[in-house]
Amino acid sequence: MAELTNDRFLRALMREPTDRTPVWMMRQAGRYLPEYRASRAEAGDFLSLCKNADFACEVTLQPLERYPLDAAILFSDILTIPDAMGLGLYFETGEGPRFERTVRSMADVEALHQPDMASDLGYVMNAVSTIRGALNGRVPLIGFSGSPWTLATYMIEGGSSKDFRHIKAMLYNDPETLHALLTRLADSVTDYLNAQIEAGAQAVQIFDTWGGVLGHTVYPTFSLDYMTRIVKGLKRTHQGRRVPVILFTKGGGQWLESIAASGADALGLDWTTSLADARTRVGEQVALQGNMDPSVLYASPDGIRTEVERILAEYGKGSGHVFNLGHGIHQFVDPEHAGAFVEAVVELSPKYHR
Amino acid sequence: MAELTNDRFLRALMREPTDRTPVWMMRQAGRYLPEYRASRAEAGDFLSLCKNADFACEVTLQPLERYPLDAAILFSDILTIPDAMGLGLYFETGEGPRFERTVRSMADVEALHQPDMASDLGYVMNAVSTIRGALNGRVPLIGFSGSPWTLATYMIEGGSSKDFRHIKAMLYNDPETLHALLTRLADSVTDYLNAQIEAGAQAVQIFDTWGGVLGHTVYPTFSLDYMTRIVKGLKRTHQGRRVPVILFTKGGGQWLESIAASGADALGLDWTTSLADARTRVGEQVALQGNMDPSVLYASPDGIRTEVERILAEYGKGSGHVFNLGHGIHQFVDPEHAGAFVEAVVELSPKYHR
Repeated sequence: MAELTNDRFLRALMREPTDRTPVWMMRQAGRYLPEYRASRAEAGDFLSLCKNADFACEVTLQPLERYPLDAAILFSDILTIPDAMGLGLYFETGEGPRFERTVRSMADVEALHQPDMASDLGYVMNAVSTIRGALNGRVPLIGFSGSPWTLATYMIEGGSSKDFRHIKAMLYNDPETLHALLTRLADSVTDYLNAQIEAGAQAVQIFDTWGGVLGHTVYPTFSLDYMTRIVKGLKRTHQGRRVPVILFTKGGGQWLESIAASGADALGLDWTTSLADARTRVGEQVALQGNMDPSVLYASPDGIRTEVERILAEYGKGSGHVFNLGHGIHQFVDPEHAGAFVEAVVELSPKYHR
Repeated sequence: MAELTNDRFLRALMREPTDRTPVWMMRQAGRYLPEYRASRAEAGDFLSLCKNADFACEVTLQPLERYPLDAAILFSDILTIPDAMGLGLYFETGEGPRFERTVRSMADVEALHQPDMASDLGYVMNAVSTIRGALNGRVPLIGFSGSPWTLATYMIEGGSSKDFRHIKAMLYNDPETLHALLTRLADSVTDYLNAQIEAGAQAVQIFDTWGGVLGHTVYPTFSLDYMTRIVKGLKRTHQGRRVPVILFTKGGGQWLESIAASGADALGLDWTTSLADARTRVGEQVALQGNMDPSVLYASPDGIRTEVERILAEYGKGSGHVFNLGHGIHQFVDPEHAGAFVEAVVELSPKYHR
């Protein structure tokens, strides 16, 4: 493997000094890019794009050709594990992800296939090693997984949800079954992220997209505890280098202290939380990643620049901040606006690192 | 007007002693009740239900016939003001509210009709006085409005939204137009709530359903400031009795101190915030309303009771708590479960008031 020529993303996650604030965007390889839409049309559909290492590599690298980003993130779907467990993932146009089968009982949990990382999810590891090779040390590659709670919401509801009716009913009426499912998921996510690390991922992020819909007393038990278990099970050093872990619970701004106690290296933040407050609360323990509202990318390039400056000032001087959006980039964003965002971080951040 | 025979809701909002914790449910007159569905079918559609004082009165009282609730809330739509401004409100099955026309420019703002409370919104005031008469002092009647920010999201997007693309673009690119719209809305909401108070509403609630999608630096400027302006413009005493005001920003748990500084009597909370923490932070200034996750109503009656006990203990002893859900009751809830919830508050709360 080639030596990393740009390691400021990894250094910032370790709260080590950097020349400027590193920047990447959640969902940076995505529908807002015309070249992504072209690749997807060529591949046929979204899952074919994920399952073919060459296509996955192609789209992973597309945003790096346009913007001076400091990290690449594996192009894959959040629901690869439930799919490998036998639930039959498919996509309905305009409906988001769906499963052919749901999990609603202990029998359903027990019937789940235990995914084998090589035979069932080897296509993801192929993508990781292919991308890592193609990056050739340009920037680090981030691997990722959904959190157990987030994966469980899709498995129990059968797809996206507005009210999380079935999983919340299970949480209160049959917590044993839910814990059995979350335990299996935590084990699989641990294996999955370790396999990504072995294949070449240099940092990993756990997306707890739906942790914020939980009450404050059940979030620790049904989401955070399982992420903590994963963090403790991860191979944190690979080929002599620390592999940092980022936890991102969207809507988790009130719970940063407990999330920081998980042992993760960094926390993702959305835009409802002040970076200055977050730094005061947990900045001695973890790095912070975020937190511009992706809707700011609908503003003019000047407006975007103003907001970038405000966020840099809010975090303040010194290392430990990875600039990002507070959620994935929206599909209707003009790619030039995404460029204005990345350029603004590159140009405006060095003064905070002198 | 008849004397109030049950004023524990109003007393709790003023943080005065009560014999037990008062309880009501947001959207308590709604689709989960078969008698509501029957009334709606008879009225023809949702808007006809709102615009006919007899129907509005009938459905407002339905949950009181089933449950020992401590307040009634006017049955109406959140979007009556934008409709009266000339945007043409309609409902598409499964799509939620839509407007025939949107507001996207200063010219659009200037073209808005200034609603007259008597001629344009008299049907709401008729409903208030009809309901107040029918209640005959049984429990207080709550009037309500959407917050300016929340109303503006629907007016600018043209309906419900996932990404709030148009209003957030306006916020960053053309804040002057957005402020002009919010100013007009704040004036109309003030008039609207004052007219409801004149017609018989004994407390009012402002629903800031979408305030929580704002970044922490723009929430004060684009949502809270306008609610504060409304609070200051309200007739807070009517017929010798204080008319309390409740502000509810869903997802606003990180901003309680600033919301409490608005001058409101009470804050609504969702389930992501601990009532104990909230009481420590702002309990000397305001009463607290909430905050059970409405999804708990999918649990068994025993599970519901356990959660009610936990929330009562979390708030602790003394007055200043109005028990409620942290959001509107879902349409698929079994009415018996809603009953178990209300009964649990009635039975379990007296020990916190001795």
